Amino acid sequence: MSKSSIPKGTRDFGPKEMVKRNYIFDAIRFVFQKYGYLPIETPAMEKTETLLGKYGDEGDRLIFKILKRGASLEKDVEKIRNGEKATYAEEALRYDLTVPFARYVVQNQNDISFPFKRHQIQPVWRADRPQKGRYREFYQCDVDVIGSNSLLNEVELVQIMDEVFGKLNISTKIKLNNRKILAGITEIIGESDRMIDITVALDKFDKVGQDGVIKELNEKGISSEAIAKLGPIFDFTGTNESKLEKLEALIGNTEAGKKGIEEIKSILEKLSTFNFEFSAVEIDITLARGLNYYTGAIFEVVCNEFPSSICGGGRYDDLTGVFGLKDVSGVGVSFGADRIYDVMEDQNLFPQNIEKTLDVLFVNFGEKEAGYCLGLLAQLRANEISSELYPDSAKMKKQMKYANEKGARKVVMIGETEMAENKLTVKDMETGEQSKLTIEQLIHSCVG
Amino acid sequence: MSKSSIPKGTRDFGPKEMVKRNYIFDAIRFVFQKYGYLPIETPAMEKTETLLGKYGDEGDRLIFKILKRGASLEKDVEKIRNGEKATYAEEALRYDLTVPFARYVVQNQNDISFPFKRHQIQPVWRADRPQKGRYREFYQCDVDVIGSNSLLNEVELVQIMDEVFGKLNISTKIKLNNRKILAGITEIIGESDRMIDITVALDKFDKVGQDGVIKELNEKGISSEAIAKLGPIFDFTGTNESKLEKLEALIGNTEAGKKGIEEIKSILEKLSTFNFEFSAVEIDITLARGLNYYTGAIFEVVCNEFPSSICGGGRYDDLTGVFGLKDVSGVGVSFGADRIYDVMEDQNLFPQNIEKTLDVLFVNFGEKEAGYCLGLLAQLRANEISSELYPDSAKMKKQMKYANEKGARKVVMIGETEMAENKLTVKDMETGEQSKLTIEQLIHSCVG
Repeated sequence: MSKSSIPKGTRDFGPKEMVKRNYIFDAIRFVFQKYGYLPIETPAMEKTETLLGKYGDEGDRLIFKILKRGASLEKDVEKIRNGEKATYAEEALRYDLTVPFARYVVQNQNDISFPFKRHQIQPVWRADRPQKGRYREFYQCDVDVIGSNSLLNEVELVQIMDEVFGKLNISTKIKLNNRKILAGITEIIGESDRMIDITVALDKFDKVGQDGVIKELNEKGISSEAIAKLGPIFDFTGTNESKLEKLEALIGNTEAGKKGIEEIKSILEKLSTFNFEFSAVEIDITLARGLNYYTGAIFEVVCNEFPSSICGGGRYDDLTGVFGLKDVSGVGVSFGADRIYDVMEDQNLFPQNIEKTLDVLFVNFGEKEAGYCLGLLAQLRANEISSELYPDSAKMKKQMKYANEKGARKVVMIGETEMAENKLTVKDMETGEQSKLTIEQLIHSCVG
Repeated sequence: MSKSSIPKGTRDFGPKEMVKRNYIFDAIRFVFQKYGYLPIETPAMEKTETLLGKYGDEGDRLIFKILKRGASLEKDVEKIRNGEKATYAEEALRYDLTVPFARYVVQNQNDISFPFKRHQIQPVWRADRPQKGRYREFYQCDVDVIGSNSLLNEVELVQIMDEVFGKLNISTKIKLNNRKILAGITEIIGESDRMIDITVALDKFDKVGQDGVIKELNEKGISSEAIAKLGPIFDFTGTNESKLEKLEALIGNTEAGKKGIEEIKSILEKLSTFNFEFSAVEIDITLARGLNYYTGAIFEVVCNEFPSSICGGGRYDDLTGVFGLKDVSGVGVSFGADRIYDVMEDQNLFPQNIEKTLDVLFVNFGEKEAGYCLGLLAQLRANEISSELYPDSAKMKKQMKYANEKGARKVVMIGETEMAENKLTVKDMETGEQSKLTIEQLIHSCVG
């Protein structure tokens, strides 16, 4: 049976999962489009050189490389031994949607009207060790605007995050930070050149607490003096206003810190100009998220009782520089559809009856009856009612089992009597009630 | 600039292409679901052994293999030299949706309620030499029912093909044949054991004509006597009824031929029981389509003035046998979304204004005005009107150019006067007319 299994870390999605997954994708896509973000798609494979070196050493190792058509392993090994470039894997599967997007923007820069608001919903592949909740193939749902410095974009992204999760009925907390605040903090403790180490440690505060962070900072050789100055960071509770006041006192006199505080204030102020009420937006100064990448706002969405974030992103001032297009700032967030799915399953948030996609099933009582049903079926379908005729005249029990498993809302039975009367016996699968209807009445009951 | 290009044979799809592609996918998906076919998705990668040997030698060469995580080329070459199995490419990208579907059915046979009606819309990958209209990554849209022998399934598939192309406004011809008719023909000319050679040659009749087919048959060593008997095949014109009569006379006394004629008759008869009128359904006894695979009905959809077929399929009696599940018959067709796109572009069949997905763009006149717009924008979005505020207070000309290129239907301008009057200056981008409206009036004009 090994022939009928799939690669580890990958999944099949059957009908019951697909209908729920599509519910999530549809909600996300709907909101993206309503906010003026246009869809693009890029190929599954990129040139290997496009991807390598963009995700760090660990990332490079996790990129799936594709064997070139007709590649000869022997020849390539000879080449490698001779110090030549091997050609066996010139292409690779995309690791995320951000780098392909940057490549797309640079490649199409003359045809794009900036600011370019795009969304992209596609799978990505990583050769990660499979474990619970971590897959080798999973979907990302990215929304970015590139070519505008305005903080209105940050505001809009917060609205989008809020609206998507509102639509999906997931109660969330949107965490907000700014890379410049992190820069201000490292400056004030006299460790500006250790920014990455410090923020990587800080980012774990949620999981390891104050002691854990201090331990890591110690191990990384940050001076005890500097660590002591970090004290106030660990006690950053209260409202956003009080956090901003504390930040002002702490890092308001550093240039980066001042700018970061201003930006957060501006975003919160703009959000307060209209009825924004679904989610809590909360400043979290330990939030870092792949810091060497972001340059301004940083976002992360968490959900109560779920360990990992379900959405995140931020502003990056030089995403396309590596492909030769300098000074184009962008900001975006990525929704993790697989984790959102897990949260919704766990918290039972999918609409009831979401699996019931078939309106009507006609029982098949034999060739003559089935032939009679074809015209009726065509009428239902002309009225956009999803319907089918069981194709074989199998035993009633088997056909009803099929109707049940498929989640049919109504089952229609047509035998000699019904054909003579020009009526349909209709069973409502929810109530179990049976009634005799004309085809017009059945159509009406389905559409109404 | 080599870093910002994509692998040959692959494509990016920008917003203008995406909206048209989605129009096609949505139409196809809508019809599939209305007929009771449920969606599934399988992973992009399958185990290499699942795919190899299913598509012939040429197919095997076109399968993209994936380099294993941490695979060492050197080690693998040593293994190959020692006659051991190399592990460098245990996985590969799917080549079509049919084999993964068969694998899925076998793997999930205990959870599936047969007959299983599924649809699947996903990309596939082939290391073909790229050329016009042929890509290394392209979408297939498959619809199959497995686990039922009933010809009602064939009837339903004809309806689906007809309805999809009706919905897309493409005038097509649905060609119908049956593998058993082909078997009858080879039997009657005394060359039953040369069935594949004969039908491969016959299949080219459309392109190379009678002389071309005869030439190929000659080259393949089919006797002149047998070829002479094929004469009537090349003159198979007239109505479906007259074709069936001619077939009856020609092969009605072979077992296979008789069965094939019966099946075609039954399908046409059932189709005639309801108003089926969009497409012409036409018997074409030269239609073969990868014969060793199909066992009953064969379908192909062609479109006037377009060289290749845009949809095709047939019945296969033993698709899952290779994975250990015997005697499960299925029938299905596959829609070629990329070719359908080309036909629709070529014949100008996409709805006018399909690219206009943005209802309203607010011009940005500066910080104060933009702030004022945020609340109005939120009201539009609450009414599901797609809208955005230009994020920067750029020059008017630049903002209007952006609105034009994005295909905004309406542009809203709010300056000092409008803020004082509590009104919006709205420009209709189609007529060029400008008017002053309240926000309620604007909402009404967008929704209405």
